[in-house]
Amino acid sequence: MSRDASPAAAAAPVHAFAGVFALVAPYMGELDRYLRGQLGSFEPEIRTMVDYCIDTSGKRIRPALTFLSGWRGPGTVNADLVRAAAVVELVHLATLVHDDIMDDADLRRSRRTASREYGSTAAVLLGDALFAHALHLATQFPTTEVCAAVSESTRRVCAGEIVQTLRRGTLNVTRADYQRIVDLKTAELFRVSCHLGARLAGFAPGFVDVAGRFGRHLGIAYQIYDDLVDFFGDESRTGKTLGTDLASGKLTLPLLALLERLDGAERAALLSEVAGEHAPQPAERARQMRELGVATAVAEAVHQEIEAARGALNGFGDMPPAPLLLALCDGLVGQVATLSVPESAPAVSG
Amino acid sequence: MSRDASPAAAAAPVHAFAGVFALVAPYMGELDRYLRGQLGSFEPEIRTMVDYCIDTSGKRIRPALTFLSGWRGPGTVNADLVRAAAVVELVHLATLVHDDIMDDADLRRSRRTASREYGSTAAVLLGDALFAHALHLATQFPTTEVCAAVSESTRRVCAGEIVQTLRRGTLNVTRADYQRIVDLKTAELFRVSCHLGARLAGFAPGFVDVAGRFGRHLGIAYQIYDDLVDFFGDESRTGKTLGTDLASGKLTLPLLALLERLDGAERAALLSEVAGEHAPQPAERARQMRELGVATAVAEAVHQEIEAARGALNGFGDMPPAPLLLALCDGLVGQVATLSVPESAPAVSG
Repeated sequence: MSRDASPAAAAAPVHAFAGVFALVAPYMGELDRYLRGQLGSFEPEIRTMVDYCIDTSGKRIRPALTFLSGWRGPGTVNADLVRAAAVVELVHLATLVHDDIMDDADLRRSRRTASREYGSTAAVLLGDALFAHALHLATQFPTTEVCAAVSESTRRVCAGEIVQTLRRGTLNVTRADYQRIVDLKTAELFRVSCHLGARLAGFAPGFVDVAGRFGRHLGIAYQIYDDLVDFFGDESRTGKTLGTDLASGKLTLPLLALLERLDGAERAALLSEVAGEHAPQPAERARQMRELGVATAVAEAVHQEIEAARGALNGFGDMPPAPLLLALCDGLVGQVATLSVPESAPAVSG
Repeated sequence: MSRDASPAAAAAPVHAFAGVFALVAPYMGELDRYLRGQLGSFEPEIRTMVDYCIDTSGKRIRPALTFLSGWRGPGTVNADLVRAAAVVELVHLATLVHDDIMDDADLRRSRRTASREYGSTAAVLLGDALFAHALHLATQFPTTEVCAAVSESTRRVCAGEIVQTLRRGTLNVTRADYQRIVDLKTAELFRVSCHLGARLAGFAPGFVDVAGRFGRHLGIAYQIYDDLVDFFGDESRTGKTLGTDLASGKLTLPLLALLERLDGAERAALLSEVAGEHAPQPAERARQMRELGVATAVAEAVHQEIEAARGALNGFGDMPPAPLLLALCDGLVGQVATLSVPESAPAVSG
């Protein structure tokens, strides 16, 4: 999952999409009311726990994607969009609760994780209950379509996480594996969030497909950006502890690209850090990434996916959501520019 | 969750319902084929893991309840019943995978648990994927009804498990708490299994409600019986490690009833075992339960719930499922009789 629910994000909305999200603020307000209104549907014994999780929910990127993809202009809030957004957000929250157990994480948005607050056993079940309720809300649409789309996406998200988990600390990860993991664990829920927004707003099937494709590429771009932040972000700005991917043995794109450019003792040293045999040196690795053009190359990979997202909208520029979705792309480009990554690859880059 | 997937159950079908289940053997065969056929719907990377879980699936009580409640006589197998049975079984399997993580269990049906085989992190996600796929199958019915019923039941099962988990090792459990936990964690999935069977077989709404009520009472009876087995079962017969409830600090009905009958130092000693301050003495506690009439009283509680299940069918005896469901009750009564519980309460009982 993208780590988009971090301490600083709570304090200041300095994230990639803040500008565009302001447009759908009335929707976000409705979503909040809707989610709080769901508390009463949970068994009384677990309401406090559910409330605690909803409170630590992060930036709500996925609901915003639903609202933006279903945008028909300011005015009345479409209740179907709010319900669909609540479904994707609850699924996302459920995965965060389970992620924090698996990562043995202490904090999320400056608060103790559900796992720390209630114990990992209760947190496993709490995630399950959130997920079950998300799917239950999805059954309140007239047909099985939303529930089918979301349950399939969720299975794919889990599959992506499983693949990543089983590869953690191993050196058995290729670029193709990375792409597959990102496609499943992050891009899938971005995709379905956009798809449902366009679908429930009543746009024609052609645009619904386009919105889904846009979401998928934006999701890939966002995850690669997030993996880059782990080496080149500013802790005070992002509010994230950096260097965690190397420390947890996750071979993300920056690390894969660095490995491709190292040999001999340097390569062996990095491999032993990934395998957890030696203490990770993220600052030193970031320095190497800058020197060897890895940082620039990975930033370029983000830009390529953003271009693919923009390209998906080709020929649909007159649809109401198009300018908003394109603005999301601009926002992410702007965020990449804030990273301490050299603008162009140095001569030594491979 | 009831611990109904134990080593010996795999070896010999000496469980409460074996006789009646034989009637629906063609359904069980179809279910097996259907579940194996689902493997291809999972992402290739996780198929082996899913297959592993389906293989360790236990006695399939819940699917059998669906088949029996939808019974219209021998002959063609109703495909809707098979799909609904697969849904409830996959939900149950998902909860077992998560249970085994939480219980830190080594074995299930003489094989390593998914958690031991793939690690607890992957097992959390695997349970999620199984659950997501269960709900996805539920969306293949023409309306949202099945998915709505199953997702709501699942949330209730999780809530029950959470309450039980949070109370573990504490002395803060009343009989009312126990009833509530059993109603949610076990009876709910029994109820929905019966409800869906009757519903999908096309029986009238009156009987659909009756089948659900029957399932709920049978589920409560089954869980109390299972809690009794933990003290009075025969390890070689049940294939279960006994005494685990006391060891894990779970205040089940036998323990609650014993506490009500002890005072002074004896009561304090038992409380310290529940709290994990002293080594548990399940054999000694079972002896006290026999002497003080607890065993008989709890067996009586099982019988009362079985009577309530039978009573639910009053006036519906001419419905095709009725004799089969009543035979399930007889089967459970027979199982209770095999426990080493005195037939009637001794004079000292309170």
